Amino acid sequence: MTTMDTEFKLYQYWRSSCSWRVRWALLHKGLTYESVPVHLVEGAQSTPEYLKINPGAKVPTLVANGSYLTQSLSILEWLEETYPENSILPGSPSDRQKVRALAHIIACDVQPIQNFAVLKRIHALGGDKVKWAKETIEAGLIAYEATLEANQLPIESVYSFANTLTLADFCLIPQCYNAKRFGVDLKRLPRIAAINAHCLSLKDCLAASPETQIDAVV
Amino acid sequence: MTTMDTEFKLYQYWRSSCSWRVRWALLHKGLTYESVPVHLVEGAQSTPEYLKINPGAKVPTLVANGSYLTQSLSILEWLEETYPENSILPGSPSDRQKVRALAHIIACDVQPIQNFAVLKRIHALGGDKVKWAKETIEAGLIAYEATLEANQLPIESVYSFANTLTLADFCLIPQCYNAKRFGVDLKRLPRIAAINAHCLSLKDCLAASPETQIDAVV
Repeated sequence: MTTMDTEFKLYQYWRSSCSWRVRWALLHKGLTYESVPVHLVEGAQSTPEYLKINPGAKVPTLVANGSYLTQSLSILEWLEETYPENSILPGSPSDRQKVRALAHIIACDVQPIQNFAVLKRIHALGGDKVKWAKETIEAGLIAYEATLEANQLPIESVYSFANTLTLADFCLIPQCYNAKRFGVDLKRLPRIAAINAHCLSLKDCLAASPETQIDAVV
Repeated sequence: MTTMDTEFKLYQYWRSSCSWRVRWALLHKGLTYESVPVHLVEGAQSTPEYLKINPGAKVPTLVANGSYLTQSLSILEWLEETYPENSILPGSPSDRQKVRALAHIIACDVQPIQNFAVLKRIHALGGDKVKWAKETIEAGLIAYEATLEANQLPIESVYSFANTLTLADFCLIPQCYNAKRFGVDLKRLPRIAAINAHCLSLKDCLAASPETQIDAVV
């Protein structure tokens, strides 16, 4: 299958870290797409029209050949299986397990607990949402750094696994952006800080980053 | 690789839904394992010894040939790649995407926001943790049911995708157990209710269920 066969449309929100994962992976795979903003703060994800596209009221949704693909990590796995060039997963099952485990630290243990919807609920309970987000992200990134160390990743490495971009980095970098927003100091996490600094110099990562999106408010 | 080559040890907690996913998948693949309880309520996941095994202080951890595998969904993907018999993912990328998206509704949008650690934080904020858990699970299962419907799953189906157990069911059934604990009525979700009733009649699912574990308190 080539890019010419498929027209991609991506429902996304500029500041959504899950949207950034997919924007970046599409560009990394050399795929172009039309961006359709879904304004999370205004509740556009919960309109009857959008719920037909994404019954979970989440972004992103990737439309590929008329099919609606939901859940960012599942979309990344699909992209990898459908467009194997510029691979984002290593070859051996045990290496793939390590990469997915890193990705899931962010995708399961961090992002869901500090996303827009949860912070709104924390605020409604009378909680301090900035403190909540900071504590969540900090604990998750400490676990990520410790896992990199347990994997014996060299401290000077610029990617989360071996010497190449993987699923893990696609999750980590957007989370580091949120870390910065909520005041988490990455200096205490040397491996993550080095990976983040390097990836933020990559053309595709930058083109997928929040501030460069058509719906960005800066 | 055969079962004979590998000795499995699973660090788990009886009531952890992520532990149930992996217990069930191991049994479904015909793999035997030694169970090592990690008492979450007593904080056994945060001891220095356990953090060496699992730097994120989570269960489960699967030990396979001396390697520590973390993150339940990543372990399930590894099991599928390493022991392809009794497959838990369909063959085509687009079907795999659908199954993984369902699994991730539970693994990313529901479980992390109602797990033991988060409920403790909600309670510390003065929030009602039962109400929080119920609302979280209810919203997630409504999204899951709507996704099954969007996938045109027949209402009489006994699995989440096609006519076979997949990654999605391994996530769904343990979540339904939590739904029941927190008072979510599955009757309003007919597809989920049918899948749950059927899977709870399967030998491996039952053998992996909380009450049958060596550390169960019943």
